Amino acid sequence: MTTAVGYDGPFYLGVDGGGSKCRVIIVTEDNQVIGEGLSGPANPLRGMKVATDSILAATQQALTCAGMAFKDMSKLIVGAGLAGVNMPEYYRIFSEWQHPFQELHLTSDLHVACIGAHQGGDGAVIIAGTGSCGLADVKGQLIEVGGHGFPYGDNGSGAWIGLQMVHHVLLAKDLLGPQTLLSDLLCHELKISQTLALVDFFMHATPTTYAKYAPLVFTAAEQGDLLAQQIVQQAADHINAIAQRLLSIDPPRLSLIGGLAHKLQPYLAPEVQQKVTPALAAPEFGSVWFARHNQQKAQRIS
Amino acid sequence: MTTAVGYDGPFYLGVDGGGSKCRVIIVTEDNQVIGEGLSGPANPLRGMKVATDSILAATQQALTCAGMAFKDMSKLIVGAGLAGVNMPEYYRIFSEWQHPFQELHLTSDLHVACIGAHQGGDGAVIIAGTGSCGLADVKGQLIEVGGHGFPYGDNGSGAWIGLQMVHHVLLAKDLLGPQTLLSDLLCHELKISQTLALVDFFMHATPTTYAKYAPLVFTAAEQGDLLAQQIVQQAADHINAIAQRLLSIDPPRLSLIGGLAHKLQPYLAPEVQQKVTPALAAPEFGSVWFARHNQQKAQRIS
Repeated sequence: MTTAVGYDGPFYLGVDGGGSKCRVIIVTEDNQVIGEGLSGPANPLRGMKVATDSILAATQQALTCAGMAFKDMSKLIVGAGLAGVNMPEYYRIFSEWQHPFQELHLTSDLHVACIGAHQGGDGAVIIAGTGSCGLADVKGQLIEVGGHGFPYGDNGSGAWIGLQMVHHVLLAKDLLGPQTLLSDLLCHELKISQTLALVDFFMHATPTTYAKYAPLVFTAAEQGDLLAQQIVQQAADHINAIAQRLLSIDPPRLSLIGGLAHKLQPYLAPEVQQKVTPALAAPEFGSVWFARHNQQKAQRIS
Repeated sequence: MTTAVGYDGPFYLGVDGGGSKCRVIIVTEDNQVIGEGLSGPANPLRGMKVATDSILAATQQALTCAGMAFKDMSKLIVGAGLAGVNMPEYYRIFSEWQHPFQELHLTSDLHVACIGAHQGGDGAVIIAGTGSCGLADVKGQLIEVGGHGFPYGDNGSGAWIGLQMVHHVLLAKDLLGPQTLLSDLLCHELKISQTLALVDFFMHATPTTYAKYAPLVFTAAEQGDLLAQQIVQQAADHINAIAQRLLSIDPPRLSLIGGLAHKLQPYLAPEVQQKVTPALAAPEFGSVWFARHNQQKAQRIS
């Protein structure tokens, strides 16, 4: 990584703000990364102060990293892809933020993931991480599905898989459902044995907590546990359904990203697997692209 | 209802404290109800202060109703069946409460429901309301299943049915699942049409909110909606599983209570339906029975 020494600008800040963390980069005109930062959730659904504090904290890190001063925030042309701003109300609230940047261009985290994955070209992206959602952007036509939140949405995601596991382990412990290796794996991982302790642990659990234990379901499935295999297959079917919907408008490329992408891919339908191509760049680079693109549009108009 | 005029005691207070409301009665030695009260949640999982405030508010109502003074609380021999005190930690916390009563005998809401349903005799009870759970008490052998909480437990309950509805309506709106009458019914009920407004409504919804809309699923099922029929049948299967487990120790009676009991009963397996008998008394009478029984035990010991 180079630094800002001897470079006068412009400076672009790309923000990928999700429900659990916020990642930013500062890049130069010729796309050199000169700084990066990482902080907590940047989802306005958790409150605007949490979100803006996360963005500012990660930005300060990135400025320090680039050898720049905090006051240089005013030089940054920012593209921010944030979870939640696909909802008009949160877009409006965030648009009214008295931010310290030169410019702020807002869109959803899913949109910048798609831009990054295909470097601004047409394509589709599915995120399978703590949550699940998909977006296709082909010849100006946008399809966006899933990602509505937990526990009613985000089917096939880590949070969803973790929830199914807890659900079935409790059924097994009550002798209301089949016995499963998941009970042993989960109780061993949490170092508990009592049902009540298990309930106590998950009583106010966030999607992130459920998602944290989702890999146990893949472990059990690989070891031949039928129930775990069913959960994984149901998750894959949800992701297949998202993929089929996105493929309906013929995106030239389809990328599968997020923490569970690699684990889920082998369980997807063959026609979906064949379509999957690696993302060309990370979402925060999509944010930079979005900032440049909107800045140029604004310049053309003015 | 008679009042306390000319009656000197003892006074029994029966408390049925659930996750959404707390119902109490004051009865005399010969089981005459002389006062009743109703307040909010009495579940220590929502905080001890909320729970004790609810119990005290309902008790004050009942005292007023009985023509007694608030200071007469110290005369009350209390049986309290509270959601959550089946968990040892919450039992301990509640046992340490510096309550204003003469005596306080604690057990779970499910236990007093069973005692009430069979007037202290052997039997089993299933609660299908906002949550779902079951208990059988036969010759001193206790089986308790379900009721672990939302969203991982309480299968087949109102909250569970409501959650399935929201889940499937969102899938239908994203064209990821079959179209269903539930979308029309739910959106009409909430007076909204946009997916985002629906997500916004349920974003921080409590089990009580999900349960409130569960009857729509029965309406759609009766009108022939296949998806709604599947959800109702899955709910009934969960309740069947609880029933089979309780029937394994041959309870002489089985009662099905709670807000969804009547709606679910026609969908239960014939062998379960045949076993179901009406509850003889409400849970708060079970609480009074529990207080008397434990008071007598204590007197025999001393």
